[in-house]
Amino acid sequence: MLDHTHAPDAQSWVSCANAADTDFPIQNLPFGRFRRAGSHDAVRVGVAIGDQVLDLHALGQLDPQVAVLLGSMAQGELNGFMAQGRAARIALRHALFEGLSAQPSGTASLWRARAESLLVPQDEAEMALPCRIGDYTDFYTGIHHATTVGKLFRPDNPLLPNYKWVPIGYHGRSSSIGVSGQAFPRPWGQVKGEGDAPVFAPSRRLDYELELGFFVGPPNAPGMPLDMAQAEASLFGATLLNDWSARDVQAWEYQPLGPFLAKNFSTTISPWIVTMEALAPFRAPFVRDAADPQPLPYLDSATNRERGAIAIGLEVWIQTHQMRAQGQSAVRVSASSFADAYWTPAQLLAHHASNGCNLQPGDLMGSGTQSGPAANQGGSLLELSQGGKAPFALENGETRTFLQDGDCVILRGFCESAAARRIGFGDCAGTLLPAMARA
Amino acid sequence: MLDHTHAPDAQSWVSCANAADTDFPIQNLPFGRFRRAGSHDAVRVGVAIGDQVLDLHALGQLDPQVAVLLGSMAQGELNGFMAQGRAARIALRHALFEGLSAQPSGTASLWRARAESLLVPQDEAEMALPCRIGDYTDFYTGIHHATTVGKLFRPDNPLLPNYKWVPIGYHGRSSSIGVSGQAFPRPWGQVKGEGDAPVFAPSRRLDYELELGFFVGPPNAPGMPLDMAQAEASLFGATLLNDWSARDVQAWEYQPLGPFLAKNFSTTISPWIVTMEALAPFRAPFVRDAADPQPLPYLDSATNRERGAIAIGLEVWIQTHQMRAQGQSAVRVSASSFADAYWTPAQLLAHHASNGCNLQPGDLMGSGTQSGPAANQGGSLLELSQGGKAPFALENGETRTFLQDGDCVILRGFCESAAARRIGFGDCAGTLLPAMARA
Repeated sequence: MLDHTHAPDAQSWVSCANAADTDFPIQNLPFGRFRRAGSHDAVRVGVAIGDQVLDLHALGQLDPQVAVLLGSMAQGELNGFMAQGRAARIALRHALFEGLSAQPSGTASLWRARAESLLVPQDEAEMALPCRIGDYTDFYTGIHHATTVGKLFRPDNPLLPNYKWVPIGYHGRSSSIGVSGQAFPRPWGQVKGEGDAPVFAPSRRLDYELELGFFVGPPNAPGMPLDMAQAEASLFGATLLNDWSARDVQAWEYQPLGPFLAKNFSTTISPWIVTMEALAPFRAPFVRDAADPQPLPYLDSATNRERGAIAIGLEVWIQTHQMRAQGQSAVRVSASSFADAYWTPAQLLAHHASNGCNLQPGDLMGSGTQSGPAANQGGSLLELSQGGKAPFALENGETRTFLQDGDCVILRGFCESAAARRIGFGDCAGTLLPAMARA
Repeated sequence: MLDHTHAPDAQSWVSCANAADTDFPIQNLPFGRFRRAGSHDAVRVGVAIGDQVLDLHALGQLDPQVAVLLGSMAQGELNGFMAQGRAARIALRHALFEGLSAQPSGTASLWRARAESLLVPQDEAEMALPCRIGDYTDFYTGIHHATTVGKLFRPDNPLLPNYKWVPIGYHGRSSSIGVSGQAFPRPWGQVKGEGDAPVFAPSRRLDYELELGFFVGPPNAPGMPLDMAQAEASLFGATLLNDWSARDVQAWEYQPLGPFLAKNFSTTISPWIVTMEALAPFRAPFVRDAADPQPLPYLDSATNRERGAIAIGLEVWIQTHQMRAQGQSAVRVSASSFADAYWTPAQLLAHHASNGCNLQPGDLMGSGTQSGPAANQGGSLLELSQGGKAPFALENGETRTFLQDGDCVILRGFCESAAARRIGFGDCAGTLLPAMARA
């Protein structure tokens, strides 16, 4: 599965991509869509390299061999390429790796000579959603999150009997998914009042959720399931995902059909899709505790047991309004790992298609909140503040139970191992604005 | 609100549109998308008139004045027109009415002279989805359904405390929405087994749900709610909707996040969108029982109280495999009315946007199952068979608790009043195929 594009010592002629702390070394090469900030240019597909964006439209014009591999991406659209699957991704990855490599070659020389037309600094780029997202599904794979939150909603029954058998999921809202940098007003909603009647008011328990998002590549036809091998092959790549949640609205509305307005006002993802190839060195065994039920056969395979999981470190950072006003950087509030997820991405996709539901290129599957086993590893404020009962202190002395207006929440993710070059996801940042006045 | 296009005695030169039992008199004029059956033509937008389809692409080429009103519809796409809103719909409705009218006029003469190029028989047309559906939301406005089903899932707690305050809804799956004529295999899924472990098997409790679907026209910007007047103005029109449901899968998977694989394998809608203008003569008062909570202010308006509801008669018909084999027509199994819905379409949309969630042209809102108050008015088999405990007889002597392979379920809808011409929705038919074999 690993090849020379995963060599930890490989370097790029784009020298900033060789910095130890970059999220985007030549081993990563994630896809996003961008235009020059402030321009009215059409959106283009690009690849992150160091602190630059490689413009695939310009690249296609420069290099006819690569243009063939790009297909419809040259027109600024990623979904067509996503539909092609693994072989097309690998071919393009190899071509990009060669052209960006510090190792001398005709291709690398050609690209390097035209660097000025090919590269756009990321801080001069305005990012768009990386692809057209038809349907968005959110799962619930964080068992520590499900247990902690379950205790708050159902003290005597935290983990329901289906949890260890079914990869629990529900449909989310596509239209309100935005890219890192998204800002949105505090939502209004119905919440429980003092008496029987609810109150319609701005949410007072606004929260984030630390998640990963997995994008679907090749589709399955309606009625046709995906076995575990097909599901693994149909995964395109991953982003960070913040499933903003209004907990007071959720508590009042969610029975019997699940979360709705508590979550569909905004969902933020990071702009870069890290491909399954870039994640390959960080695959890990999927181990089900012997005391737990083993997955049913349609969710099981030898490959999944050997390397179905992915070790992705995850962090939540917050920069409050006060911190910004005082010139202070964001502070980290928690950290966890996707290695703790109860189901693997291939299991989520195989389950999703198991009834014949058709998945399409660009469809997005959220992982659910990723919390670690420790109390300070909660992937949401609901967990960190024990349901809002225990304010916790930020490093600058401010405290939080839930989010305050002006808070910017930044998710970060990265993969590290002794045998591979560190790769990262880039920031997934979103800012809560004050509620809008209502007539 | 009513004008000469609603006159009950208006007739068309398309004489089949004057038949007493047609769903599509000149007062209706619903939009759909079609191509000639068996052709590889691009899909075109059409309007149903009697048993014919008026081809708007051909019409635009014939009549430049109408071409201006059609805009992007001439290219076979309805969403752009949906975004324009009520004034554009009314202008086009008036132009279509004049051109199709039996009243002599230059326009009517011109169209009539070219009838052969403008009209395609519906039985020679293959229908597509009427528009691109970005997001699909399903509500739960059938209080009789919610009460009966609630008793089955929660005998001591059928109607939850939020039901009479919140228009309960959840997000559905867009990719698996198909148009009337859809056939799909019986889905597999996890269902409760004899012991603790579930079983992965074809669903044994496959059901339909009798619903209406409402399409969104003009969008709201992210973060910007719609008040009741704006919500009413943002409705485009309605179809019939069958929310097929695997009850055994649903019972096992639905807690705590709601229905997922139990419903996302297929959803069938009727091909024609009946516009809000065609429904105008059938608007009815929205009356909340004095013993019930009155709607919160954001869900209330004088207009909604006066005419927020719509009186639409609804029916379910079934044609079994045996009936088809013996040349028997479908038999009616139940009837109900959308006038019994607990919330109006404008309330659903105002609630959906109340947190700032952005709705887009072509988004679809299901009404939830529409059952009448009587036991034989259930809009699903779950209700008619008392949760599968009481088989009921079809007219030909067959019995059903849930659907059998080969059953074709046909939803029908129509509006009738003493003061207006009857209009209908056309059939919403779907067929259950046997489960596919699994390795």
